[in-house]
Amino acid sequence: MGAIKVTIWNEFQHEKQHDEVKKVYPNGIHEAIAEYMREQPDMEVKTATLDEPEHGLTEEVLADTDVLMWWGHMAHDKVKDEIVDRVQTRVLDGMGLIVMHSGHMSKIFRRMMGTSCGLTWREAAEKERLWVVNPNHEITRDLGQYIELEHTEMYGEVFDIPEPDELLFVSWFQGGEVFRSGAVWHRGRGKIFYFRPGHETFPIYFNPEIRQVLANGVRWAKFNGNTNTVGINVCPNVKPIEKLPEAK
Amino acid sequence: MGAIKVTIWNEFQHEKQHDEVKKVYPNGIHEAIAEYMREQPDMEVKTATLDEPEHGLTEEVLADTDVLMWWGHMAHDKVKDEIVDRVQTRVLDGMGLIVMHSGHMSKIFRRMMGTSCGLTWREAAEKERLWVVNPNHEITRDLGQYIELEHTEMYGEVFDIPEPDELLFVSWFQGGEVFRSGAVWHRGRGKIFYFRPGHETFPIYFNPEIRQVLANGVRWAKFNGNTNTVGINVCPNVKPIEKLPEAK
Amino acid sequence: MGAIKVTIWNEFQHEKQHDEVKKVYPNGIHEAIAEYMREQPDMEVKTATLDEPEHGLTEEVLADTDVLMWWGHMAHDKVKDEIVDRVQTRVLDGMGLIVMHSGHMSKIFRRMMGTSCGLTWREAAEKERLWVVNPNHEITRDLGQYIELEHTEMYGEVFDIPEPDELLFVSWFQGGEVFRSGAVWHRGRGKIFYFRPGHETFPIYFNPEIRQVLANGVRWAKFNGNTNTVGINVCPNVKPIEKLPEAK
Amino acid sequence: MGAIKVTIWNEFQHEKQHDEVKKVYPNGIHEAIAEYMREQPDMEVKTATLDEPEHGLTEEVLADTDVLMWWGHMAHDKVKDEIVDRVQTRVLDGMGLIVMHSGHMSKIFRRMMGTSCGLTWREAAEKERLWVVNPNHEITRDLGQYIELEHTEMYGEVFDIPEPDELLFVSWFQGGEVFRSGAVWHRGRGKIFYFRPGHETFPIYFNPEIRQVLANGVRWAKFNGNTNTVGINVCPNVKPIEKLPEAK
Repeated sequence: MGAIKVTIWNEFQHEKQHDEVKKVYPNGIHEAIAEYMREQPDMEVKTATLDEPEHGLTEEVLADTDVLMWWGHMAHDKVKDEIVDRVQTRVLDGMGLIVMHSGHMSKIFRRMMGTSCGLTWREAAEKERLWVVNPNHEITRDLGQYIELEHTEMYGEVFDIPEPDELLFVSWFQGGEVFRSGAVWHRGRGKIFYFRPGHETFPIYFNPEIRQVLANGVRWAKFNGNTNTVGINVCPNVKPIEKLPEAK
Repeated sequence: MGAIKVTIWNEFQHEKQHDEVKKVYPNGIHEAIAEYMREQPDMEVKTATLDEPEHGLTEEVLADTDVLMWWGHMAHDKVKDEIVDRVQTRVLDGMGLIVMHSGHMSKIFRRMMGTSCGLTWREAAEKERLWVVNPNHEITRDLGQYIELEHTEMYGEVFDIPEPDELLFVSWFQGGEVFRSGAVWHRGRGKIFYFRPGHETFPIYFNPEIRQVLANGVRWAKFNGNTNTVGINVCPNVKPIEKLPEAK
Repeated sequence: MGAIKVTIWNEFQHEKQHDEVKKVYPNGIHEAIAEYMREQPDMEVKTATLDEPEHGLTEEVLADTDVLMWWGHMAHDKVKDEIVDRVQTRVLDGMGLIVMHSGHMSKIFRRMMGTSCGLTWREAAEKERLWVVNPNHEITRDLGQYIELEHTEMYGEVFDIPEPDELLFVSWFQGGEVFRSGAVWHRGRGKIFYFRPGHETFPIYFNPEIRQVLANGVRWAKFNGNTNTVGINVCPNVKPIEKLPEAK
Repeated sequence: MGAIKVTIWNEFQHEKQHDEVKKVYPNGIHEAIAEYMREQPDMEVKTATLDEPEHGLTEEVLADTDVLMWWGHMAHDKVKDEIVDRVQTRVLDGMGLIVMHSGHMSKIFRRMMGTSCGLTWREAAEKERLWVVNPNHEITRDLGQYIELEHTEMYGEVFDIPEPDELLFVSWFQGGEVFRSGAVWHRGRGKIFYFRPGHETFPIYFNPEIRQVLANGVRWAKFNGNTNTVGINVCPNVKPIEKLPEAK
């Protein structure tokens, strides 16, 4: 089996505009994640960002991507609808999609979910503890009972998402809230994983456990299903298989 | 408890343009459905169609609608995106949505599902049998083991939808196919029911069992949940409930 | 529509044996719950306890019950298997089941779930906050964003249950844990609701919000589905509907 | 990664008692399946049958099994409850379970589902077509749009099972019925796959596509999750992680 082709997309705006963010992620959030994924012997890593032509997500790039990772925050609205259409079509056709943190408000995540993806939030550098609630799932592999993050942004319920196919993580926050922090869905032939942790001013993507979850997510999200069925992204007229009675 | 306010939306194009359709549904598909719903003592019925201003779906109409029924086929693309946005927001806020037959390709259904909603199809006036697979659900109430339709259009799998919250009906077709013909999902505060039967040239919406299912669907889809939560269609910044440690 | 027939089952052992419990629930936990349910104009209330013949759950009582509520803790093993069989059969046939607090380890709940229903726990009279995560569901009706309980026993994840059909509440605990505190499943024609709060020495079942949730649960759990299907609790041989080819 | 340890369990009664069955499966159904699995380079295969001590399912055998396959029909009641307990505990702890055909009425399947697992059935050697409804899932890999079986026993709805985590196959039968023929659930750390085809007098387990599905099922069902969580098969008392306020 060939390597998993991972494309890490980052809007890459905060890191150019805000010194505080630049200090944490000097090469961008995408490079912090790519650094770890490149160490994985079973992965081949590309990156893409908002300011590139077609946001770096050409037909060729997507065709050559098994799993797309997505980080965005301040520029969700700058992502062109035609690129969102293209990514959606490719996900339905089998590309995995991993949406991280503030990506919950991205056009592509809202498109795939059909909901507003709203939530409540607070920046108070408080403690978070992500509890594993589904030890059956390979995304939770090699973790303990929970992941603890000393300082994070808080996300609270109601998180406006469809009922997950499987709920993997639930977060506890010091300020009193809970959040469904890790969940998976399938859409068409594609698998989708949302994972909450991550922020532009906390060094979350250097945390070894968070990186482990993301690598597990990539391995899980790679398509391994059936390519011979019809009905995904097409609506064909078909002949009967069984003989029908003569029309009267 | 007041009456359920039902708005029946029909694109109402076939019935104006094609004599064959006009013969079956002289007042439009919406009126065939409305006729039955108006007989229900617990329902108040409105209709709306594509050619009306704002497609008949003004803010006022939607605010005054508990459950919206949707039929469309040849003019899906003529529905304005801003109206689709408006309907989606209202569904997330609690309005029920019942999508019928070829409405599977409507903008609003694809928007709520996040998938292509593709399938295979054939017009051969063949027999269909809709089996109840979930006798727990109130939408299947007062039916037998199955509903039989002598002449229908065929829809076949793969039907590109998210895994339903609950699957209610599976169809058998004479020509050899099966189809997940009735399924429900919730999105935000809203409930969604997709029901396959119905076609512009078969008199499906006069069938008493089909009408029963649609009326059951309306009763089920009416919102009866929690209006005090936040996170649906909003993303507010919130204060901690528990006292946080002093920042260092 | 007639009244909902509710039977509240309590093992009723702690209240007879431990003075501390007797002080909180002098007539038993079942009577604390029954007191509130009897005030509901749409409910008719019975109680049943372990020490009665057949644990108070005769064929007659179950046949006359729409929704069974279950509280047990120290005497799970004393419940006879034949009564568990009888309750399971009746649930599959359409009786609603509401399992409360330590009832998670009851024979009937483990039977219906197929899992160990294990969890972690602690008695430290700590604060709990039950967040509504599904505002669509009628069990969450008339509540705020969350229910706060000043002093409770803690239950922590992993809670060994099947993926819920719908997850309704997630708890935050002062000591650092989270828990899926409210969830629903259907099994056969029956609806099941598990609700965490409640303990023999905390007066949880006098809390107005907890009582509201339980009454909502009873209304939701009442069967309203299809009685004409076959396959639940039977496995009949059937004739073909379509004509089959001659055997060769 | 080591080989997948597969144990194929068959009650092995029909093949000893009925000449017609012996002719189709001279070495037993388990050996017909084992023959194919032994050809897989990534599998190590054992078999076990009812008449062996402890039905061949000792603690040692189960501890050394990644995935257990189950076929039974006429002797479900002869399987000892203590062995069913043992298998259930091992599934919750992470062993995969594949239940085939008439195994739907086995004690272990009914135990894991919590339902009666009833259905309707007919032996008329009619045609079946198993449609893939979830092309995302690896169990459907390398198949076409459907699998066709010329002569099979019919199983019809309502199939009394919990809502599947994912529905994979729906069958069309010549006599007019449909059936949810392939579905998966997780319970505790274990994965469960039910697959309908197979019968003692039809040579279904020699069909290359059916064998492909079963091999896909074995690969999918192997545990690949989290072993560090607690709550599965245990219910431990735990200390607070966060400091609690002083008791008053």
